[in-house]
Amino acid sequence: MTDPAPKPGAADAAIAIVGAGSIGSSFAVVHATAGRAVTLFDAASDAMQSAEERMLLTLTDLREHGLLDEDPAAVLARVSFADDLESAVGKAGFIHECVSENPDLKARLTAEIDACARRGVVIGSASSAIPASEYARDVAGRSRCLVTHPGNPPFLLRVIEIVPAAFTDPAATAAAQSILAAAGLETIVVRKELRGFVFNRLQGALLREAYCLVRDGVVDVEEIDALVRDGLGLRWSVIGPFETVDLNTRGGIERHAKLLGPAYEAMGAERGQHDPWTDELVASVTRQRRALLPMPDWEARVRWRDRTLMQVLAARRRAAG
Amino acid sequence: MTDPAPKPGAADAAIAIVGAGSIGSSFAVVHATAGRAVTLFDAASDAMQSAEERMLLTLTDLREHGLLDEDPAAVLARVSFADDLESAVGKAGFIHECVSENPDLKARLTAEIDACARRGVVIGSASSAIPASEYARDVAGRSRCLVTHPGNPPFLLRVIEIVPAAFTDPAATAAAQSILAAAGLETIVVRKELRGFVFNRLQGALLREAYCLVRDGVVDVEEIDALVRDGLGLRWSVIGPFETVDLNTRGGIERHAKLLGPAYEAMGAERGQHDPWTDELVASVTRQRRALLPMPDWEARVRWRDRTLMQVLAARRRAAG
Repeated sequence: MTDPAPKPGAADAAIAIVGAGSIGSSFAVVHATAGRAVTLFDAASDAMQSAEERMLLTLTDLREHGLLDEDPAAVLARVSFADDLESAVGKAGFIHECVSENPDLKARLTAEIDACARRGVVIGSASSAIPASEYARDVAGRSRCLVTHPGNPPFLLRVIEIVPAAFTDPAATAAAQSILAAAGLETIVVRKELRGFVFNRLQGALLREAYCLVRDGVVDVEEIDALVRDGLGLRWSVIGPFETVDLNTRGGIERHAKLLGPAYEAMGAERGQHDPWTDELVASVTRQRRALLPMPDWEARVRWRDRTLMQVLAARRRAAG
Repeated sequence: MTDPAPKPGAADAAIAIVGAGSIGSSFAVVHATAGRAVTLFDAASDAMQSAEERMLLTLTDLREHGLLDEDPAAVLARVSFADDLESAVGKAGFIHECVSENPDLKARLTAEIDACARRGVVIGSASSAIPASEYARDVAGRSRCLVTHPGNPPFLLRVIEIVPAAFTDPAATAAAQSILAAAGLETIVVRKELRGFVFNRLQGALLREAYCLVRDGVVDVEEIDALVRDGLGLRWSVIGPFETVDLNTRGGIERHAKLLGPAYEAMGAERGQHDPWTDELVASVTRQRRALLPMPDWEARVRWRDRTLMQVLAARRRAAG
């Protein structure tokens, strides 16, 4: 049997996207701007019409901001729209499933995709919180199923978590990594399947605390958003949460944990959480940070943080004025 | 008795800063760049020497990035160094206490400052987690004590939380707001005193979850930092956490809470937290968001989010290249 299509998992694989809502059409932008052929399908044909308009708007905006070298129409010409599921996924080298967050719908659709897709082609779900072990459990080809959960919108938040189930073939995980990396996304493989994965566990932790603070009349919604926009979020956009506290305390994260760990633990206990930062855990985190930033470079890195924040603020000022 | 110094709380008040570590010297930069006279004091005289060097470096960096119109030396000329506590705070119109996070030290020092400072002058502590009701409880002039907790560094993270104790005079809170706002900081008055205030409660919630994920072998330190830098944090630097989920789900935050609230609640429960997003709470948050962004403007705001993120990414690219 000959098969003229590229090898499944190859970096130039054709992409099929099922579900043409905002995430589906954003994935189409990601892959089409990376030069790939994309086929989009949605059971609702008006969804495909809106998707086309939205993609053109996005590509035009990207071009205007100097983030796209090609003509938007040329990129859009690589995206085609399928009339049915089978013609959408039948020849694809990678499949994104981007329907709404409903386990039954995902389970049914994944089985249908599995029945149409070529052998070895990976099916990645944009699930926000439902793990593959739940929606793909009863799918015949479950070993090629995993979650590929992006930030929204994925053409701007260029990092994606890949979450295999215990039954996922490691080769499927590797293929998803290679295809998504070739589209310019940084891939994070989550080593244990857990509810909400990493992105939404972190987001959820902050959001739950934010809801508590509003509920208790401590601050209002916009005050929290302002504190994060101009404070925590601004800094986290330059250095993540671990590097933030590593640089916040002279002596690094080990000293931070010593000085402020008990306060953070007490704040957690007030919300019912008891996950102490044990000496062993702090030592492990410290080892990882020190491998990334040896202590003699700490002072210079603080200045780098400040100078990078200055670039961001200068850009904000230019954009505003 | 005549007093030639400006009225305490006036926007042009002279500023005293006790503790010349990184936060103290950063506050000196904030106020001196806003045109104020600043007096810095630290019991360790070498700390003042390092502070002066650090401030010059910071001012030079700010100037290089177009964030400072004046000559660094001219700004630095407004900062003087005191030989003792009394001469540092005796004539000030506002006092920042910026010593390390130690309740006994803060209590003792606040009492000493209170004994030297002019009547009506507010004493703001840069405490990260210790509330004024704890460290200032036994201070005679406790009604002028409150926490003014900045982001680090405060000359770049231009938002600050003001946390009065129950015993704090509302006039002191108002004076702190006016002085800090005049220095270009957005002030958030926290309406109930709580451990960690708002900044570190939000930071702590995310950090505790991050430590759990590392402890459980789900991802490593750098993977979490990457996900936040290029994902959550990048988006939060443009829109805060409430606006993020308001824009993430068609139908807004009310629909987000309906669709994903149960998943977030289950993630919380796995960490011991049981703070449900009740209908009443979701309705209150929704009311606040809809007052900020009426539903007919939702689609346009999503595009605004994307275009603003594009500006940030274009600036990142320029900075990198």
